[in-house]
Amino acid sequence: MGSTTRRLNIGFIGFGSFAQFLAKTMIKQGHLIRATSRSDYSAHLGPHFFRDMDEFMGLENDVILICTSILSLSEVVKSIPFHRLKKPTLFADVLSVKEHPRQILLQEVPEDSDLLCTHPMFGPESGKEGWKNLNFMYDRVRVRDEDLCSSFLRIFETEGCKMIEMSCEEHDKLAAQSQFVTHTIGRILSEMQITNTPIDTKGFEKLVQVKESTANDSLDLYIGLFIHNRFAKQQMKNLEGALQRVKGSLEAKMEEEDGRE
Amino acid sequence: MGSTTRRLNIGFIGFGSFAQFLAKTMIKQGHLIRATSRSDYSAHLGPHFFRDMDEFMGLENDVILICTSILSLSEVVKSIPFHRLKKPTLFADVLSVKEHPRQILLQEVPEDSDLLCTHPMFGPESGKEGWKNLNFMYDRVRVRDEDLCSSFLRIFETEGCKMIEMSCEEHDKLAAQSQFVTHTIGRILSEMQITNTPIDTKGFEKLVQVKESTANDSLDLYIGLFIHNRFAKQQMKNLEGALQRVKGSLEAKMEEEDGRE
Ligand SMILES: NC(=O)c1ccc[n+]([C@@H]2O[C@H](COP(=O)([O-])OP(=O)(O)OC[C@H]3O[C@@H](n4cnc5c(N)ncnc54)[C@H](OP(=O)(O)O)[C@@H]3O)[C@@H](O)[C@H]2O)c1
Ligand SMILES: NC(=O)c1ccc[n+]([C@@H]2O[C@H](COP(=O)([O-])OP(=O)(O)OC[C@H]3O[C@@H](n4cnc5c(N)ncnc54)[C@H](OP(=O)(O)O)[C@@H]3O)[C@@H](O)[C@H]2O)c1
Repeated sequence: MGSTTRRLNIGFIGFGSFAQFLAKTMIKQGHLIRATSRSDYSAHLGPHFFRDMDEFMGLENDVILICTSILSLSEVVKSIPFHRLKKPTLFADVLSVKEHPRQILLQEVPEDSDLLCTHPMFGPESGKEGWKNLNFMYDRVRVRDEDLCSSFLRIFETEGCKMIEMSCEEHDKLAAQSQFVTHTIGRILSEMQITNTPIDTKGFEKLVQVKESTANDSLDLYIGLFIHNRFAKQQMKNLEGALQRVKGSLEAKMEEEDGRE
Repeated sequence: MGSTTRRLNIGFIGFGSFAQFLAKTMIKQGHLIRATSRSDYSAHLGPHFFRDMDEFMGLENDVILICTSILSLSEVVKSIPFHRLKKPTLFADVLSVKEHPRQILLQEVPEDSDLLCTHPMFGPESGKEGWKNLNFMYDRVRVRDEDLCSSFLRIFETEGCKMIEMSCEEHDKLAAQSQFVTHTIGRILSEMQITNTPIDTKGFEKLVQVKESTANDSLDLYIGLFIHNRFAKQQMKNLEGALQRVKGSLEAKMEEEDGRE
């Protein structure tokens, strides 16, 4: 690899489906991947999987990438044996909410290690044919080792992601009205058990796709979006209010029509 | 034109945006188009536009295609001077609900004329790059002149539509859970004023598209879907119920998490 693509040792904390999806591309790019997780993934990673968190933290990781669920983040980070670190390290996370991990990491990660909060705006489904033109949000929360941080971001740049630098707060505001609303509508459509019909319109086909991609994500992820994004509750209210207004306007028109007959 | 593509004289009643969209392809195929409508479209159609309904009905139309709004259908059909017809004619409609026009047409159209109820499951937006693989639903409500009916259906077959023969009742059942739900969600998203953000996911981009395509359709069309499809009201209830269940499950989980802290 040339000077622009430095080979990184990347240690994952949490090796569920999204972490595995990211690791595949990182391995393809030539980086060395190690992981620890609540469940045992040694069948997947062989000697690169560490059941023992102490041993994992003693490895020479350049980057420690936190990929646990939103709901377990606080517990997981608080259980990390930071004193085992052999050198300052870049701690990065990929959680779908951003103010919450920023706060926990600032609180728990030793001062001499760097912090980068990120959110790849795609997953195993939308990113299955590559990451080109997909959005990658990041906030350089505490970065002194510029070279290391850039090398890590380059993983996503190289794949063609649209790199968007943004504060964690701004992310959460926007994601509440986009991603959280999308997941909510997907879950409503699942509850309604909507499925393709022989007479689908193009618009309805899109809704079925939204439903299906939501169904692939864990319920923990959705609950995390609601509980740990402080802007989500207002969006839920907006959604309810909008439904009531749409329904109200239909009912008013219906009475008017009834009156005319 | 060969024997398989008979040149038809097609008379439109209602020449709003959807009728104009259909007419463009019919003209391209070589059919002769005439129209009458509440508003004046002579700037559009020149001598082929007839302000006078009596004159229009006296023309030798092979097919009379009803393209008025769902809400005005009953009034419009009841005002047609059927006695002016020079010969039995095929009456067809394209309304987005089907039981309602079927009933009105069976009631009003002279017994010696044929009836075909149809619903092209696309519009100016989804059909702007051609009609290939788009769904076209039809119900041969009262057809004796098989040749004429087939010639009319061939307009859509020729463009590559998926031709789906289905009863009007079955259509309304399916369209309530697909098209009506899609329009409702599109209108809810409009009410919420959702727009693209710099960090859109693919799923959210689809919702913005649903919102935008709904915004292009008239409010009359949406109200018509609700008032004149007897299955729509239940779908509105299902949507509300599903939203309440999704919200309830989030709130329950939130209390549980609060308890743990
Ligand atoms: N899926 C996506 O498309 C996507 C996109 C962008 C960002 N993200 C973010 O990526 C992270 C992982 O997402 P995901 O899709 O893999 O599913 P997820 O359900 O959000 O998270 C699963 C991960 O969390 C761990 N975990 C869950 N509960 C735990 C607990 N009580 N203690 C310790 N670890 C626990 C799991 O460990 P084990 O597997 O070892 O049990 C697994 O590694 C999330 O923060 C999510 O917001 C996901
Ligand atoms: N848009 C679509 O994508 C789509 C797809 C499939 C089927 N359709 C169906 O096609 C029909 C036309 O749809 P559209 O999109 O053009 O918009 P629309 O708002 O549903 O209907 C507009 C048409 O209805 C006529 N109209 C409205 N109120 C009237 C009244 N009180 N008296 C007489 N005529 C009246 C208008 O006449 P003037 O223009 O002369 O005022 C115009 O021709 C509808 O039945 C709709 O369900 C639409």
